[in-house]
Amino acid sequence: MQSVFTFSLPSVLFFAIMKGKRGRKENCRFMSYRESIRVVDTTLRDGGLVNDFKFSDDFVRALYKANLAAGVDYMEVGYRSSKTIFDASQFGAWKFSEDEVISKVIGEVNPAIKLAVMADVGRCDFKNDIRQKKESPISLIRVATYIHQVSDAIEMIEDAKEKGYEVSCNLMAISKATPSELRVALDMISKSNVDVIYVVDSFGSLYPEQVRNFVKVYKEFAGKTGKKLGIHAHNNQQLAFANTIAACCDGVDWVDATYGGMGRGAGNCYMENLIGYLHNSKYDLLPVIQFVEEHVKALKNSKDVWGFDIPYLLTGISNQHPRAAISYIKEGRNDITSFFNELEKSE
Amino acid sequence: MQSVFTFSLPSVLFFAIMKGKRGRKENCRFMSYRESIRVVDTTLRDGGLVNDFKFSDDFVRALYKANLAAGVDYMEVGYRSSKTIFDASQFGAWKFSEDEVISKVIGEVNPAIKLAVMADVGRCDFKNDIRQKKESPISLIRVATYIHQVSDAIEMIEDAKEKGYEVSCNLMAISKATPSELRVALDMISKSNVDVIYVVDSFGSLYPEQVRNFVKVYKEFAGKTGKKLGIHAHNNQQLAFANTIAACCDGVDWVDATYGGMGRGAGNCYMENLIGYLHNSKYDLLPVIQFVEEHVKALKNSKDVWGFDIPYLLTGISNQHPRAAISYIKEGRNDITSFFNELEKSE
Repeated sequence: MQSVFTFSLPSVLFFAIMKGKRGRKENCRFMSYRESIRVVDTTLRDGGLVNDFKFSDDFVRALYKANLAAGVDYMEVGYRSSKTIFDASQFGAWKFSEDEVISKVIGEVNPAIKLAVMADVGRCDFKNDIRQKKESPISLIRVATYIHQVSDAIEMIEDAKEKGYEVSCNLMAISKATPSELRVALDMISKSNVDVIYVVDSFGSLYPEQVRNFVKVYKEFAGKTGKKLGIHAHNNQQLAFANTIAACCDGVDWVDATYGGMGRGAGNCYMENLIGYLHNSKYDLLPVIQFVEEHVKALKNSKDVWGFDIPYLLTGISNQHPRAAISYIKEGRNDITSFFNELEKSE
Repeated sequence: MQSVFTFSLPSVLFFAIMKGKRGRKENCRFMSYRESIRVVDTTLRDGGLVNDFKFSDDFVRALYKANLAAGVDYMEVGYRSSKTIFDASQFGAWKFSEDEVISKVIGEVNPAIKLAVMADVGRCDFKNDIRQKKESPISLIRVATYIHQVSDAIEMIEDAKEKGYEVSCNLMAISKATPSELRVALDMISKSNVDVIYVVDSFGSLYPEQVRNFVKVYKEFAGKTGKKLGIHAHNNQQLAFANTIAACCDGVDWVDATYGGMGRGAGNCYMENLIGYLHNSKYDLLPVIQFVEEHVKALKNSKDVWGFDIPYLLTGISNQHPRAAISYIKEGRNDITSFFNELEKSE
């Protein structure tokens, strides 16, 4: 199946004949197979921010099957939020992603895919709500932190590592951080027992060149302690996929994507684009597009709204949280000029 | 107005402190102001392929005003097709873009913006239908050619130059060309009197790295004879904007875009993204987003279908003309698996 979706011979020849040592290296970068690539499906978690995590059990099971068939490495089933902090009656099950619920809905986990949950600093009662790995269907704990919470994040990272999990750390809102803050945070995280550190474009404000610059800085710290790097992008400027493959070209191995780009606001890197791009026979595009056509488009045609639109573009360009754009769209406003001016004032 | 849509101080500092000579050059590339940038609005021409060029006069006038207010340099009003080849009753006026019609709808052209038409090799009776520049509201003739038609294209280029126009050349479907064909074509075109040579991703099949590789080859030829370069991208893989700014970073000055990305199949680079990106006080984002909200969204909600979708992704990935995807969507098909298999067979 994969065979047709490769480059035509002329294109390949074209790159093959490019001259110069540096040229050669760059030209084949995007075509190279890397065993170390890990695709992480974050549809239920980032997509859950669109519908308050109210996915049907059938949707979750079909997604799990699609991921398995597509060769996706990790499936993030949702947040592991604390029920003492959030009112469970307001959300679907995947806001909390309790071990029992995961096992009930998905059943025994096929070893070909690993499950993950995200644990936000300050919103997860990790000491009580994250068990020993051997008692849980989860393999990976994804700790999400703002830069000022890094000490707390490290406590969570070490707790999860001690319990036997793989652990990644999503350092959020870096486009608002000062260079020295960022370096201190990266130094601390890279000295922890975390396995993967993510470059996260929380506001969808970054251009590919900026992502590459961040990757360079992350590598400086992660390289010293042997950590892997990941990329989590948002589509405010229609650059989620471009930013993901830019990072990927520069050696970032862990790549987040969602089916149909489902995710908060403008959404994320589309899984169908990513799988179509990866030159790796492990991944199969057909199950991905089948899932989007059969399941995601139905959600998209319902009241669940996500994807590129002008208000998200504006919060992206102005490096702001998308919450103002989400409200604008939710309220059905159509006074874009006022919105434009409001953003300017809020800067 | 432009003030809010710039980078936050931390980001700027972040790039400012990056080390290394090469690093510095690359890091400021996307922030640099270039007087030589020319933004070309191709909404009526590429967007006309979506609705058979049936735009209302009000739409055209509002678009012209938006372009003027936004600082857009050129507005392509449509094709200059031959009425002996195409049945005029089947199309709106902008398939033919006759000088009289342009003058009637737009009136006298403000010197702050120039008008353009596209003339396809073999579809334009250029000797009769393109007058002397001084008798026409048009400033720029954009000659579009496949690689095997380059001799004919050069005849058209020279004819238009003799008549007094600026002339650009769009060399189409280069992702299917062999490297030697491409070099011969570029050699011929760059030795003509053309002003601008366009890198065109006709099938939306190219990744940013590939675009950069093409730009390098185009520069090799264009550099020798002092031609400018342009970029015309399609959004099959959601990379039209990313490919446009990648080319722009590498010194391509002429950049095509359409409001709301309106264009054949998956559409083009979005004008709102492009203007939001350009660090040039000449351009203003607000009139662009106002036009999209007031005029383009209404078209999009009507029967005129364009924009990223799975079938276009598949023709893009497999480096094929989007016509199969356009038919799939027009026919309201929902058998994506069959479509996937059909594409494989047609390769």
